[in-house]
Amino acid sequence: MGLASWNLQIARAEKVFNAFADEDFYKHIAPGKNRIIYLYGHLASYHDALKETLGLGKRSKPEYASLFLQIPDDTSTEYSSLEELKNYWASIHSELTSLFLALPAEEWFHRHNAMTDEDFAKDPTRNRLSVLLNRANHVAYHLGQINLVKPSI
Amino acid sequence: MGLASWNLQIARAEKVFNAFADEDFYKHIAPGKNRIIYLYGHLASYHDALKETLGLGKRSKPEYASLFLQIPDDTSTEYSSLEELKNYWASIHSELTSLFLALPAEEWFHRHNAMTDEDFAKDPTRNRLSVLLNRANHVAYHLGQINLVKPSI
Repeated sequence: MGLASWNLQIARAEKVFNAFADEDFYKHIAPGKNRIIYLYGHLASYHDALKETLGLGKRSKPEYASLFLQIPDDTSTEYSSLEELKNYWASIHSELTSLFLALPAEEWFHRHNAMTDEDFAKDPTRNRLSVLLNRANHVAYHLGQINLVKPSI
Repeated sequence: MGLASWNLQIARAEKVFNAFADEDFYKHIAPGKNRIIYLYGHLASYHDALKETLGLGKRSKPEYASLFLQIPDDTSTEYSSLEELKNYWASIHSELTSLFLALPAEEWFHRHNAMTDEDFAKDPTRNRLSVLLNRANHVAYHLGQINLVKPSI
Protein backbone atom coordinates (compact mmCIF):
# COMPACT_ATOMS: atom_id res chain seq x y z
CA MET A 1 0.00 0.00 0.00
CA GLY A 2 2.93 2.33 0.61
CA LEU A 3 4.07 1.56 -2.93
CA ALA A 4 0.56 2.13 -4.26
CA SER A 5 0.53 5.54 -2.56
CA TRP A 6 3.89 6.42 -4.14
CA ASN A 7 2.88 5.12 -7.58
CA LEU A 8 -0.35 7.08 -7.49
CA GLN A 9 1.44 10.35 -6.72
CA ILE A 10 4.05 9.78 -9.43
CA ALA A 11 1.33 8.90 -11.96
CA ARG A 12 -0.55 12.08 -11.04
CA ALA A 13 2.61 14.17 -11.33
CA GLU A 14 3.42 12.73 -14.76
CA LYS A 15 -0.10 13.37 -15.98
CA VAL A 16 0.12 17.00 -14.88
CA PHE A 17 3.62 17.61 -16.30
CA ASN A 18 2.75 15.88 -19.58
CA ALA A 19 -0.24 18.16 -20.07
CA PHE A 20 2.01 21.23 -20.07
CA ALA A 21 3.30 22.86 -23.25
CA ASP A 22 7.03 23.58 -23.13
CA GLU A 23 6.42 27.26 -22.40
CA ASP A 24 4.23 26.38 -19.40
CA PHE A 25 7.32 25.06 -17.62
CA TYR A 26 8.57 28.64 -17.35
CA LYS A 27 5.45 29.88 -15.60
CA HIS A 28 5.44 30.66 -11.89
CA ILE A 29 2.97 28.79 -9.67
CA ALA A 30 2.08 32.18 -8.14
CA PRO A 31 3.61 35.67 -8.45
CA GLY A 32 7.19 35.58 -7.14
CA LYS A 33 7.05 31.85 -6.38
CA ASN A 34 8.81 28.85 -7.96
CA ARG A 35 8.46 28.09 -11.64
CA ILE A 36 7.16 24.74 -12.86
CA ILE A 37 10.58 23.86 -14.32
CA TYR A 38 12.19 24.30 -10.92
CA LEU A 39 9.67 22.01 -9.22
CA TYR A 40 10.10 19.48 -12.03
CA GLY A 41 13.86 19.37 -11.45
CA HIS A 42 13.32 19.54 -7.68
CA LEU A 43 11.16 16.41 -7.58
CA ALA A 44 13.38 14.52 -10.05
CA SER A 45 16.59 15.24 -8.16
CA TYR A 46 14.98 14.55 -4.77
CA HIS A 47 13.91 11.16 -6.09
CA ASP A 48 17.36 10.62 -7.57
CA ALA A 49 18.69 11.11 -4.03
CA LEU A 50 16.02 8.73 -2.72
CA LYS A 51 18.04 5.81 -4.10
CA GLU A 52 20.85 6.74 -1.72
CA THR A 53 18.56 7.39 1.24
CA LEU A 54 17.04 3.95 0.78
CA GLY A 55 20.48 2.39 0.24
CA LEU A 56 19.51 1.08 -3.18
CA GLY A 57 21.93 2.90 -5.45
CA LYS A 58 23.90 6.01 -6.29
CA ARG A 59 22.52 9.29 -7.60
CA SER A 60 22.86 9.61 -11.36
CA LYS A 61 23.17 13.43 -11.30
CA PRO A 62 24.47 14.60 -7.90
CA GLU A 63 25.33 17.95 -9.51
CA TYR A 64 21.61 18.76 -9.74
CA ALA A 65 21.30 18.86 -5.94
CA SER A 66 22.90 22.30 -5.74
CA LEU A 67 20.46 23.70 -8.32
CA PHE A 68 17.22 22.03 -7.33
CA LEU A 69 17.55 21.03 -3.68
CA GLN A 70 19.87 23.45 -1.94
CA ILE A 71 18.62 26.74 -3.39
CA PRO A 72 15.18 28.03 -4.33
CA ASP A 73 14.19 28.86 -7.88
CA ASP A 74 16.12 31.73 -9.36
CA THR A 75 15.11 33.11 -12.75
CA SER A 76 18.70 34.10 -13.40
CA THR A 77 19.85 30.46 -13.06
CA GLU A 78 20.33 28.61 -16.30
CA TYR A 79 18.79 25.17 -15.94
CA SER A 80 19.40 22.21 -18.23
CA SER A 81 17.25 22.08 -21.32
CA LEU A 82 13.71 20.93 -20.76
CA GLU A 83 14.43 17.92 -22.95
CA GLU A 84 17.33 16.91 -20.72
CA LEU A 85 15.17 17.30 -17.60
CA LYS A 86 12.42 15.20 -19.18
CA ASN A 87 14.91 12.43 -19.91
CA TYR A 88 16.23 12.72 -16.37
CA TRP A 89 12.73 12.46 -14.89
CA ALA A 90 11.91 9.42 -17.03
CA SER A 91 15.14 7.58 -16.25
CA ILE A 92 15.00 8.24 -12.49
CA HIS A 93 11.44 7.05 -12.14
CA SER A 94 11.82 4.00 -14.33
CA GLU A 95 14.93 3.05 -12.33
CA LEU A 96 13.04 3.48 -9.04
CA THR A 97 10.16 1.36 -10.33
CA SER A 98 12.57 -1.48 -11.12
CA LEU A 99 14.38 -1.14 -7.79
CA PHE A 100 11.12 -1.14 -5.84
CA LEU A 101 9.75 -4.16 -7.71
CA ALA A 102 12.95 -6.06 -6.98
CA LEU A 103 12.94 -5.22 -3.24
CA PRO A 104 11.52 -8.04 -1.07
CA ALA A 105 8.58 -6.83 1.05
CA GLU A 106 10.39 -7.30 4.37
CA GLU A 107 13.26 -5.07 3.19
CA TRP A 108 10.92 -2.09 3.37
CA PHE A 109 10.97 -2.45 7.14
CA HIS A 110 14.74 -2.13 7.37
CA ARG A 111 16.37 1.09 8.36
CA HIS A 112 17.18 3.70 5.72
CA ASN A 113 20.59 5.29 5.25
CA ALA A 114 19.76 8.69 6.68
CA MET A 115 19.76 7.32 10.22
CA THR A 116 22.05 5.36 12.51
CA ASP A 117 21.50 1.82 13.85
CA GLU A 118 21.16 3.36 17.29
CA ASP A 119 18.34 5.71 16.28
CA PHE A 120 16.64 2.89 14.42
CA ALA A 121 16.68 0.69 17.50
CA LYS A 122 14.85 3.48 19.32
CA ASP A 123 12.21 3.89 16.62
CA PRO A 124 11.90 1.03 14.10
CA THR A 125 9.03 2.74 12.28
CA ARG A 126 11.63 5.08 10.76
CA ASN A 127 12.32 2.61 8.00
CA ARG A 128 12.42 2.60 4.21
CA LEU A 129 8.64 2.48 4.00
CA SER A 130 8.26 5.59 6.13
CA VAL A 131 10.67 7.40 3.80
CA LEU A 132 8.58 6.35 0.80
CA LEU A 133 5.35 7.58 2.44
CA ASN A 134 7.08 10.84 3.25
CA ARG A 135 8.24 11.27 -0.35
CA ALA A 136 4.73 10.52 -1.66
CA ASN A 137 3.42 13.32 0.59
CA HIS A 138 6.17 15.59 -0.70
CA VAL A 139 5.04 14.99 -4.30
CA ALA A 140 1.43 15.76 -3.32
CA TYR A 141 2.62 18.96 -1.59
CA HIS A 142 4.16 20.33 -4.79
CA LEU A 143 1.38 18.97 -7.01
CA GLY A 144 -1.04 21.20 -5.12
CA GLN A 145 1.14 24.13 -6.22
CA ILE A 146 1.77 22.95 -9.77
CA ASN A 147 -1.95 22.49 -10.34
CA LEU A 148 -2.43 26.23 -9.81
CA VAL A 149 -1.05 26.65 -13.33
CA LYS A 150 -3.44 25.64 -16.06
CA PRO A 151 -1.87 24.09 -19.19
CA SER A 152 -1.96 26.50 -22.12
CA ILE A 153 -2.99 23.79 -24.60
CA MET B 1 3.35 4.02 9.88
CA GLY B 2 0.21 4.98 8.02
CA LEU B 3 -1.00 6.64 11.19
CA ALA B 4 2.37 8.37 11.65
CA SER B 5 2.08 9.76 8.12
CA TRP B 6 -1.42 11.07 8.86
CA ASN B 7 -0.43 12.50 12.24
CA LEU B 8 2.57 14.26 10.71
CA GLN B 9 0.46 15.97 8.04
CA ILE B 10 -2.19 17.06 10.56
CA ALA B 11 0.50 18.39 12.90
CA ARG B 12 2.04 20.34 10.02
CA ALA B 13 -1.35 21.70 8.99
CA GLU B 14 -2.14 22.82 12.53
CA LYS B 15 1.23 24.52 12.85
CA VAL B 16 0.63 26.44 9.63
CA PHE B 17 -2.96 27.42 10.44
CA ASN B 18 -2.06 28.42 14.00
CA ALA B 19 0.62 30.78 12.71
CA PHE B 20 -1.95 32.80 10.77
CA ALA B 21 -3.56 35.96 12.10
CA ASP B 22 -7.34 35.99 11.70
CA GLU B 23 -7.12 38.29 8.68
CA ASP B 24 -4.72 35.88 6.93
CA PHE B 25 -7.55 33.37 6.63
CA TYR B 26 -9.19 35.69 4.10
CA LYS B 27 -6.16 35.81 1.82
CA HIS B 28 -6.07 33.92 -1.46
CA ILE B 29 -3.33 31.34 -1.97
CA ALA B 30 -2.75 32.93 -5.41
CA PRO B 31 -4.69 35.51 -7.42
CA GLY B 32 -8.16 34.17 -8.21
CA LYS B 33 -7.57 30.93 -6.28
CA ASN B 34 -9.02 29.56 -3.03
CA ARG B 35 -8.75 31.50 0.21
CA ILE B 36 -7.14 29.99 3.30
CA ILE B 37 -10.49 29.92 5.12
CA TYR B 38 -12.00 27.80 2.36
CA LEU B 39 -9.15 25.28 2.52
CA TYR B 40 -9.42 25.23 6.30
CA GLY B 41 -13.12 24.33 6.11
CA HIS B 42 -12.43 22.01 3.17
CA LEU B 43 -9.92 19.89 5.09
CA ALA B 44 -12.02 19.87 8.27
CA SER B 45 -15.21 18.77 6.53
CA TYR B 46 -13.38 16.21 4.39
CA HIS B 47 -11.98 14.73 7.59
CA ASP B 48 -15.42 14.90 9.20
CA ALA B 49 -16.64 12.74 6.29
CA LEU B 50 -13.66 10.44 6.78
CA LYS B 51 -15.39 8.96 9.84
CA GLU B 52 -18.19 7.74 7.58
CA THR B 53 -15.85 6.52 4.85
CA LEU B 54 -13.98 4.45 7.41
CA GLY B 55 -17.21 3.27 9.00
CA LEU B 56 -16.28 4.70 12.39
CA GLY B 57 -18.98 7.27 12.98
CA LYS B 58 -21.32 9.91 11.59
CA ARG B 59 -20.38 13.37 10.34
CA SER B 60 -20.92 16.04 12.94
CA LYS B 61 -21.67 18.78 10.36
CA PRO B 62 -22.94 17.23 7.12
CA GLU B 63 -24.25 20.66 6.11
CA TYR B 64 -20.66 21.85 5.58
CA ALA B 65 -20.21 19.44 2.67
CA SER B 66 -22.17 21.64 0.30
CA LEU B 67 -20.03 24.68 1.18
CA PHE B 68 -16.57 23.16 1.41
CA LEU B 69 -16.62 19.97 -0.61
CA GLN B 70 -19.12 20.33 -3.42
CA ILE B 71 -18.32 23.84 -4.58
CA PRO B 72 -15.10 25.83 -4.90
CA ASP B 73 -14.39 28.92 -2.85
CA ASP B 74 -16.69 31.80 -3.59
CA THR B 75 -15.99 35.19 -2.04
CA SER B 76 -19.72 35.93 -2.04
CA THR B 77 -20.43 32.92 0.18
CA GLU B 78 -20.82 33.63 3.84
CA TYR B 79 -18.89 31.06 5.82
CA SER B 80 -19.25 30.31 9.50
CA SER B 81 -17.23 32.51 11.78
CA LEU B 82 -13.56 31.69 12.01
CA GLU B 83 -14.03 30.85 15.66
CA GLU B 84 -16.68 28.29 14.81
CA LEU B 85 -14.45 26.76 12.14
CA LYS B 86 -11.56 26.57 14.58
CA ASN B 87 -13.74 24.72 17.08
CA TYR B 88 -14.93 22.43 14.31
CA TRP B 89 -11.34 21.65 13.22
CA ALA B 90 -10.29 20.92 16.81
CA SER B 91 -13.26 18.68 17.60
CA ILE B 92 -13.03 16.69 14.34
CA HIS B 93 -9.33 15.99 14.73
CA SER B 94 -9.47 15.15 18.39
CA GLU B 95 -12.34 12.78 17.68
CA LEU B 96 -10.37 11.11 14.86
CA THR B 97 -7.34 10.74 17.11
CA SER B 98 -9.45 8.89 19.70
CA LEU B 99 -11.12 6.71 17.07
CA PHE B 100 -7.80 5.79 15.48
CA LEU B 101 -6.18 4.97 18.81
CA ALA B 102 -9.10 2.69 19.66
CA LEU B 103 -9.03 0.84 16.34
CA PRO B 104 -7.19 -2.51 16.54
CA ALA B 105 -4.33 -2.68 14.02
CA GLU B 106 -5.92 -5.45 11.95
CA GLU B 107 -9.06 -3.37 11.47
CA TRP B 108 -7.07 -1.01 9.23
CA PHE B 109 -6.94 -3.81 6.68
CA HIS B 110 -10.72 -4.15 6.46
CA ARG B 111 -12.65 -2.62 3.63
CA HIS B 112 -13.88 0.95 3.88
CA ASN B 113 -17.47 2.04 3.34
CA ALA B 114 -16.97 3.69 -0.02
CA MET B 115 -16.64 0.33 -1.77
CA THR B 116 -18.59 -2.92 -2.07
CA ASP B 117 -17.59 -6.35 -0.74
CA GLU B 118 -17.24 -7.46 -4.33
CA ASP B 119 -14.76 -4.74 -5.25
CA PHE B 120 -12.84 -5.37 -2.06
CA ALA B 121 -12.50 -9.06 -2.91
CA LYS B 122 -10.88 -7.99 -6.19
CA ASP B 123 -8.48 -5.57 -4.55
CA PRO B 124 -7.96 -5.98 -0.78
CA THR B 125 -5.40 -3.17 -0.70
CA ARG B 126 -8.31 -0.73 -1.01
CA ASN B 127 -8.84 -0.80 2.73
CA ARG B 128 -9.09 1.70 5.55
CA LEU B 129 -5.34 2.20 5.63
CA SER B 130 -5.22 3.11 1.95
CA VAL B 131 -7.93 5.71 2.59
CA LEU B 132 -5.85 7.18 5.42
CA LEU B 133 -2.71 7.36 3.25
CA ASN B 134 -4.77 9.03 0.55
CA ARG B 135 -6.12 11.62 2.99
CA ALA B 136 -2.61 12.33 4.30
CA ASN B 137 -1.53 13.05 0.71
CA HIS B 138 -4.57 15.27 0.29
CA VAL B 139 -3.54 17.35 3.32
CA ALA B 140 -0.02 17.68 1.90
CA TYR B 141 -1.48 18.75 -1.46
CA HIS B 142 -3.30 21.70 0.08
CA LEU B 143 -0.48 22.51 2.51
CA GLY B 144 1.73 23.18 -0.49
CA GLN B 145 -0.79 25.82 -1.51
CA ILE B 146 -1.46 27.23 1.94
CA ASN B 147 2.28 27.70 2.50
CA LEU B 148 2.35 30.16 -0.40
CA VAL B 149 0.76 32.66 2.01
CA LYS B 150 3.13 34.02 4.62
CA PRO B 151 1.61 34.78 8.03
CA SER B 152 1.30 38.51 8.61
CA ILE B 153 2.51 38.27 12.21
